[in-house]
Amino acid sequence: MEKKLNKQEEIDVSDLKGVAADIICDRFSGERWVRTSVHVPSEMALKIYVNCQELVTILCTPTKLNCLVLGFLYAEGIISGLDDVASMRVCEEESLADVRLSNPEYELPTLRTLTPGCGGGAVFKTQGQRVDSDLVTTPTEVLSLMKQLQKQMVLYRLGGGVHASALSDTKNLLVVAEDIGRHNTLDKIQGECLLRQLSTRDRLLLSTGRVSSEMLLKAAKMQVPIVVSRHSPTGSAISLARDLGIALVGYARGSRLVVYSHPERLIRSADEDS
Amino acid sequence: MEKKLNKQEEIDVSDLKGVAADIICDRFSGERWVRTSVHVPSEMALKIYVNCQELVTILCTPTKLNCLVLGFLYAEGIISGLDDVASMRVCEEESLADVRLSNPEYELPTLRTLTPGCGGGAVFKTQGQRVDSDLVTTPTEVLSLMKQLQKQMVLYRLGGGVHASALSDTKNLLVVAEDIGRHNTLDKIQGECLLRQLSTRDRLLLSTGRVSSEMLLKAAKMQVPIVVSRHSPTGSAISLARDLGIALVGYARGSRLVVYSHPERLIRSADEDS
Repeated sequence: MEKKLNKQEEIDVSDLKGVAADIICDRFSGERWVRTSVHVPSEMALKIYVNCQELVTILCTPTKLNCLVLGFLYAEGIISGLDDVASMRVCEEESLADVRLSNPEYELPTLRTLTPGCGGGAVFKTQGQRVDSDLVTTPTEVLSLMKQLQKQMVLYRLGGGVHASALSDTKNLLVVAEDIGRHNTLDKIQGECLLRQLSTRDRLLLSTGRVSSEMLLKAAKMQVPIVVSRHSPTGSAISLARDLGIALVGYARGSRLVVYSHPERLIRSADEDS
Repeated sequence: MEKKLNKQEEIDVSDLKGVAADIICDRFSGERWVRTSVHVPSEMALKIYVNCQELVTILCTPTKLNCLVLGFLYAEGIISGLDDVASMRVCEEESLADVRLSNPEYELPTLRTLTPGCGGGAVFKTQGQRVDSDLVTTPTEVLSLMKQLQKQMVLYRLGGGVHASALSDTKNLLVVAEDIGRHNTLDKIQGECLLRQLSTRDRLLLSTGRVSSEMLLKAAKMQVPIVVSRHSPTGSAISLARDLGIALVGYARGSRLVVYSHPERLIRSADEDS
């Protein structure tokens, strides 16, 4: 992401597996060519085996791969918690994850839905469970959280081209994930919460990406009652949000946002009331 | 997409299946709430049956569905042309496509890769074929084509939240497709080219979305030697582009662009030489 080149020195790139560094390219600007070096997002094809059977290959950014695998299996209903996992080995060099379930007889699903969201969000189940929560927030809190998220987008600042999502208690960001796939960011958050024994219930989800029905179903699975995006939701995501009791917020940028469902979850700010 | 509300009257919305119209929402701006009505992208889950077997479900925008199905089957190597299709019925109401192949014994692939690109780009095959072409273009042509594409993004202007791609002969846009899924836009273009008997060879592909390896492989399958995006490519997409002989152009915006591979395909403009 060349416009941020000057920021690259602030971060130790060697630690960042999610970034392919020093890509030589030619930049054209105002009728002049310059040869330069930039960083771009890394991409890998992670093959997931469950009980020695190939389940799926996910194209993703090679960070927090253990979280991605666990979160994906959880979101797809293949595991309902860490107890269902007897062992897991994620080998980045071989681009594979080998998961053994506690139940060696578990029958893997075979039908897959290809989702429009960046992130390989296969859907083996599509029903959502209504979110039961009293969580509310304010526009001011939401917009402040979006600013926090933008500050924590390390890979984006280095190489562009990735999405970021975060789980929040409405005050702070608890978990942040970046990935070339929108859906992968949610799976990484889900997986990290499982590993850290952090509840996703009564939290708020923020994402830089558009919200499709699949993103919404992942949020419902997390029992998250407020979903915020910098971009647009789809019509189906809005219908689902209304049915599932989720406040869906879009175009959260600067000092503006749009609420498409359950506006009662976005109350006036305290400083607005004064 | 509320910021473009005033544009909505220019287009007959009733014709646009890709848009969910008149969604009531609450807009917060500068500490004030306003109830308003907006358009957002439609989304559907299209189930594709091939020879009476369920192949896949693609989440997509309900436009050019016949192109999407044909393009998807072609990109995945399931058909190599219209001759391989004995019959096809796409029923939008039932959200299904029923394809019968000329070969009723055709064995469907079962393993799928979930791709990070918006668009359900399952990969049943991942090898790319090197593109053999003498096509060149200029930065000026590329930037002018990107402007043309933006003008033709009808669904985006109405509801936001969709990607657009176009096939071009470097002078004009030949085929344009919009979808909530990045990959679906390429499949729709591929399918439309099959139906219109339009060659994709020696053309240029433009896309508003990021270019992952999967987008690049679809371009290689089309034998397109120049791929242009408004956004970033991934590291894998750049490697593939170098191997496959494709000039990969990113961040094509305004008067700027970046070339990541085969810069010899982007020559100086005639007016720059003068």
